[in-house]
Amino acid sequence: MNSDQPDAQTLNLHCPSPIEADCIQLGHGGGGQLSSQLFNEVIAPRFANAELNRGHDSALLNLAGADVAFTTDSYVVNPLIFPGGSIGKLAVFGTVNDLLMAGARPQYISCSLIIEEGLAISTLGMILDDMADAAREAGVEIVTGDTKVVERGHGDGLFINTAGIGVREWPGVIAPQSIQPGDCLILSADIGRHGLAILAQRQGLQFDAPLQSDCASLLPAVTALFDAGLEVHCLRDATRGGLASVLVELAETSGCRFDVRESAIPVSPVVTGACELLGFDPLHIANEGCFVAAVAPEHAEQALVLLRQQAVSGSCALIGRVSEAGDGKVYLETPLGSRRVLRRMTGRLLPRIC
Amino acid sequence: MNSDQPDAQTLNLHCPSPIEADCIQLGHGGGGQLSSQLFNEVIAPRFANAELNRGHDSALLNLAGADVAFTTDSYVVNPLIFPGGSIGKLAVFGTVNDLLMAGARPQYISCSLIIEEGLAISTLGMILDDMADAAREAGVEIVTGDTKVVERGHGDGLFINTAGIGVREWPGVIAPQSIQPGDCLILSADIGRHGLAILAQRQGLQFDAPLQSDCASLLPAVTALFDAGLEVHCLRDATRGGLASVLVELAETSGCRFDVRESAIPVSPVVTGACELLGFDPLHIANEGCFVAAVAPEHAEQALVLLRQQAVSGSCALIGRVSEAGDGKVYLETPLGSRRVLRRMTGRLLPRIC
Repeated sequence: MNSDQPDAQTLNLHCPSPIEADCIQLGHGGGGQLSSQLFNEVIAPRFANAELNRGHDSALLNLAGADVAFTTDSYVVNPLIFPGGSIGKLAVFGTVNDLLMAGARPQYISCSLIIEEGLAISTLGMILDDMADAAREAGVEIVTGDTKVVERGHGDGLFINTAGIGVREWPGVIAPQSIQPGDCLILSADIGRHGLAILAQRQGLQFDAPLQSDCASLLPAVTALFDAGLEVHCLRDATRGGLASVLVELAETSGCRFDVRESAIPVSPVVTGACELLGFDPLHIANEGCFVAAVAPEHAEQALVLLRQQAVSGSCALIGRVSEAGDGKVYLETPLGSRRVLRRMTGRLLPRIC
Repeated sequence: MNSDQPDAQTLNLHCPSPIEADCIQLGHGGGGQLSSQLFNEVIAPRFANAELNRGHDSALLNLAGADVAFTTDSYVVNPLIFPGGSIGKLAVFGTVNDLLMAGARPQYISCSLIIEEGLAISTLGMILDDMADAAREAGVEIVTGDTKVVERGHGDGLFINTAGIGVREWPGVIAPQSIQPGDCLILSADIGRHGLAILAQRQGLQFDAPLQSDCASLLPAVTALFDAGLEVHCLRDATRGGLASVLVELAETSGCRFDVRESAIPVSPVVTGACELLGFDPLHIANEGCFVAAVAPEHAEQALVLLRQQAVSGSCALIGRVSEAGDGKVYLETPLGSRRVLRRMTGRLLPRIC
């Protein structure tokens, strides 16, 4: 037996070939069509309950009279440290942002580490420093955690899981189900920076201008909207699967038709250039510091003014509207004036992006 | 056990792996001395806050007036399916038990999957079925989650993280700091079954009697104690690092001296036999369905009666006392009548046990 071949246990549990039907593929983790299938067909039917079925970034729970949001994400980004951030910064801000997207003020997070034997403790220290800094910036405390170590070759340096709890102190249910015909769709920042920064770092690509991840806490932007008492119906950060997946998911869940103008979507020149060079569509590239908001039309202008005042959402834009007709699809008006139905990516663009 | 099966030495269980000074070793995840060092020197100083410093299984939080407990664990057990359980069952019961150990009734848990490309979806389905069954048994809902996929060779089939929230509905602060001189130390069940079941499965060992993990929900046992209004000061499940690590940690944190009689610690004949053959000490073997309780002396007898009525704690026993003198050490009275100071394991006995 060739030493590269899997052992007996691996054969029992793993598929012999990556193309076999009953087999997890990288695309199942990409945030697109395959991810959606895996959740809807394999996971959700087994755990079925009202909260999980809501398909929100966070579960909305009542705990002994307190309205809280609860969320989790595991972070497997490769490389661990990248331009504009690290797996540590990402693990805190990602979970903080998921709580904010449910209209909750983030309060407490957990930190669970799966470390591969051989990771330098100094690297771990740098990443934990990033987590501590990010937690301070977002006003959360890391109150509980866990550490596991796996043998060399059975992990990949470091995976981090964070779970988060926030208190829903702002009124209204901020959820896809609250989206209403007439709502304005606001994108908080220009897209494509995180995914391309990871790709550039991984492949050793260099562009004309420096390309940094947009990894950031959305707290200042979301707080600005809520503290002004604006009628925000839904918030969703455009992470895995990019803006396209988020819009399609929100339209499907709300059952509303979205009309979006492609030319209104902010994309920086360096991202536009890199995407043209590499043949990528910025709509499918992951972001870690930008969100879509569905806002009541009478409050949209004020929302844009407030968002522009915050560094994290300085490049925000009105990108479309929720129309009266409700077929649960997203119609994209191209720069040439034609109209196409926007779809999720099938499979994967870049694995291990977050 | 057959005589031609390998002993501990040839299984490579005690051989140190190649060590560089600034490197994470398997022992850092073993729950013993190295784990403790990693937490105290690398993690805790960076995240310092009152809750994390408490060193409890769960953080105790106040959320908009509600008293809750919050905990997390990542599960990397190898193999994924073992006699008496699976990584799925372990991931639910482990987190449920951590909430119970803080005197909280488990309510909601999260489920975050890190899947290695190539895992059979049917295997994943079996494990998720186990999670759903375990959640039903423990009365918790799986309300939020996440799925990531890593490339072949960069993970190990499946890692699961669960975080859990419970409501503290029983009175008193159940924590190491609440342990008082005079408390009785009760062990809820016989030790060593989980660790040996994993080892046997991994190494293809066979013993005279079947050896099953004790992986179980501690809900019936803990509920029995609290519902009877017994004065329970501290609860701690004896997982990684085994009973020895748990006793040492509780004595250190409480600053009390523990006197424990080795002959009073329940160990099943099959575990005793296997440990003698392999050269293991059952005190250092991981468990997944047993806990230590520090109970007010006037309630100890009733606690034992109530625990014996529950299947999960039918083999419970009074194993020692918290003495008046407080030097923060555990004194073990051996069957021969001599006395020794109990210490944590240094390094690792078995990696990937949970």
